Amino acid sequence: MAKTIDVYGSELVEDYAKTINDFGLEEFDPSMFPEPNRIMRRGAVFAGRDLKRIADCIKNKKPFYVLSGIMPTGDRIHFGSKLVVEQIAYFQKHGAQAYILIADLEAMASRGVTLEQAKKRAYDFHIPAYIALGLDPKKTIFYFQSENKDVVHMAYEFAKKITLSEFKSIYGSADPGRIMSAVTQVGDMLYPQLEERMPGIIPVGIDQDPHIRLARDVIRRMKQKKFFPISSIYHKFTPSLDGSIKMSKSKPESCIELPEDVNAVTRKLKRALTGGRDTVEEQKKLGGIPEKCMIFEFYKQHMLENDADLDKIYNDCKKGTLLCGQDKQDACEHMAKFMQDFVNKVEQAKKIVPKLNFVKF
Amino acid sequence: MAKTIDVYGSELVEDYAKTINDFGLEEFDPSMFPEPNRIMRRGAVFAGRDLKRIADCIKNKKPFYVLSGIMPTGDRIHFGSKLVVEQIAYFQKHGAQAYILIADLEAMASRGVTLEQAKKRAYDFHIPAYIALGLDPKKTIFYFQSENKDVVHMAYEFAKKITLSEFKSIYGSADPGRIMSAVTQVGDMLYPQLEERMPGIIPVGIDQDPHIRLARDVIRRMKQKKFFPISSIYHKFTPSLDGSIKMSKSKPESCIELPEDVNAVTRKLKRALTGGRDTVEEQKKLGGIPEKCMIFEFYKQHMLENDADLDKIYNDCKKGTLLCGQDKQDACEHMAKFMQDFVNKVEQAKKIVPKLNFVKF
Repeated sequence: MAKTIDVYGSELVEDYAKTINDFGLEEFDPSMFPEPNRIMRRGAVFAGRDLKRIADCIKNKKPFYVLSGIMPTGDRIHFGSKLVVEQIAYFQKHGAQAYILIADLEAMASRGVTLEQAKKRAYDFHIPAYIALGLDPKKTIFYFQSENKDVVHMAYEFAKKITLSEFKSIYGSADPGRIMSAVTQVGDMLYPQLEERMPGIIPVGIDQDPHIRLARDVIRRMKQKKFFPISSIYHKFTPSLDGSIKMSKSKPESCIELPEDVNAVTRKLKRALTGGRDTVEEQKKLGGIPEKCMIFEFYKQHMLENDADLDKIYNDCKKGTLLCGQDKQDACEHMAKFMQDFVNKVEQAKKIVPKLNFVKF
Repeated sequence: MAKTIDVYGSELVEDYAKTINDFGLEEFDPSMFPEPNRIMRRGAVFAGRDLKRIADCIKNKKPFYVLSGIMPTGDRIHFGSKLVVEQIAYFQKHGAQAYILIADLEAMASRGVTLEQAKKRAYDFHIPAYIALGLDPKKTIFYFQSENKDVVHMAYEFAKKITLSEFKSIYGSADPGRIMSAVTQVGDMLYPQLEERMPGIIPVGIDQDPHIRLARDVIRRMKQKKFFPISSIYHKFTPSLDGSIKMSKSKPESCIELPEDVNAVTRKLKRALTGGRDTVEEQKKLGGIPEKCMIFEFYKQHMLENDADLDKIYNDCKKGTLLCGQDKQDACEHMAKFMQDFVNKVEQAKKIVPKLNFVKF
């Protein structure tokens, strides 16, 4: 498979090519990894840091870990979290020990959520949602930051290793809650290596790269403890339905969350930006432009698992045989089915939360 | 007794009068408190915040606490710590529940000391030293910050309540380790109120006032939890032997620490600034100036418990019957006795450390 950012050539590609360059990332090459998943194959996963170390662990069946955190604010998650879970599930399947931490200290320091609220939300929704989206709970170690002294102690230790100006240069700004959150995240990322020294990978949206950089800077400065530098793997944002690069709650009519009412989702999808022509006649003659179509982006990133199904939509659009109205109608049906399935799976997963493998401290 | 800063009128007074004004402190009035101790009577204790609340607790036999932290860096302490302990002992005697915390997280975040090093130093020296200086260990609750989840959780909670610019305006500067230390201190100051809602007082050197201000600002901003604002009581710096306002390790020949070799102390005391005249004849005729004498300051703050003894030295100096040579000789003998006594008591106190009342978490 070709080394490429986006096999379908989305209009949003250029921004990501620039990001790779600006941030000093490695371009993601799906041929490095066995059986690349949907988002790896389709360019939604586009970059990383120190990926070869992880690819070698998979190849040589050496221990490694994949880790992510749940910020238990609110009672919905966005589609970016779905991509994170799919990445975790991929690495779990290929030998990684998965760690999921509940970032309750961060939720308190940066959002003012109490530890009790955070715990309740994590149990009632966030953890079940991750399981519903494909996390293998039996192969996952869970913990709450507030209960993990090792993580907190590392946070205090690492605070000594960065200056305020470095912090500002990485994050653009600094306030006490954000600083404490950030150093705590570094503690989280390295916590599995306290148990067993092994490489680890963090799947994140590109907006989370500052945390990765901070962790890698801190590790470089440690003289005694020998941690592996953190590897990372980046997926694109789920684009806003109006065509801008990132779906955001600040534009609710262009944003779909999980879960969301099917009628609302249908209304939003029907208003989404597509690559359609000015008239039906023109479109039948010239074909549509799937590279500009947010419905197609949604299919590609989230809805269609089978590559042949996606190819068919792409080609039918190009040929002008699949028009935007029908395409949106199909997408709404896919989405309605997906949302109902998600809600059902969350309800199922709630029942097993008490039995999960939470670290006892 | 008159409401005054310093009954013997030290030359260093003016700076403290300015401090009271600049920081918005209450001038300390020893008549507010029963049986004022040596440093309260002699103006070494010179200011406070919300002192009446504590005086009322003593008067009405209501519960209150006194709290201080030990920063377990190094293997010596300075004379300022002696004043802190004497204040704690005073409030213990007058009904306060005493809390002593070992600031091991702060030592790590601000000085890079490991938790293991901090624990060892606290057990082997700092806690025994506090007991040697008069802390009643049976009436004291001890804890390590690194083990106290409640304190750490409050630190994260409070980080949300201050901005970086507020932090800078209080402390003059900000770096991540210092920020984490400061919010953790606020957690320490309020921790006893989680157990029982009661007023508390923190005895500190005036240089520690930023922490008190930060705590009081944070408390003001809390809507739900009703904490009593922290009261504080300030003692002066132990002046440098060369006459400047604060003894500092940066000038080792003008600085005495605890413990310190008797020969070194004798050498330093003999070179100390006094209020002597140019010639012996002149001094016999005009008398000395004890207000300018660092030996007298040491007697006043630290060496002579009995007021009549201090008065006699003051008067003999003024009259010109006690000359600087003899005065220094006497001071060296006092100090040698004190140091030997301190070392002996530390050795004794070490034995009881394992039996102390450490909070179990």
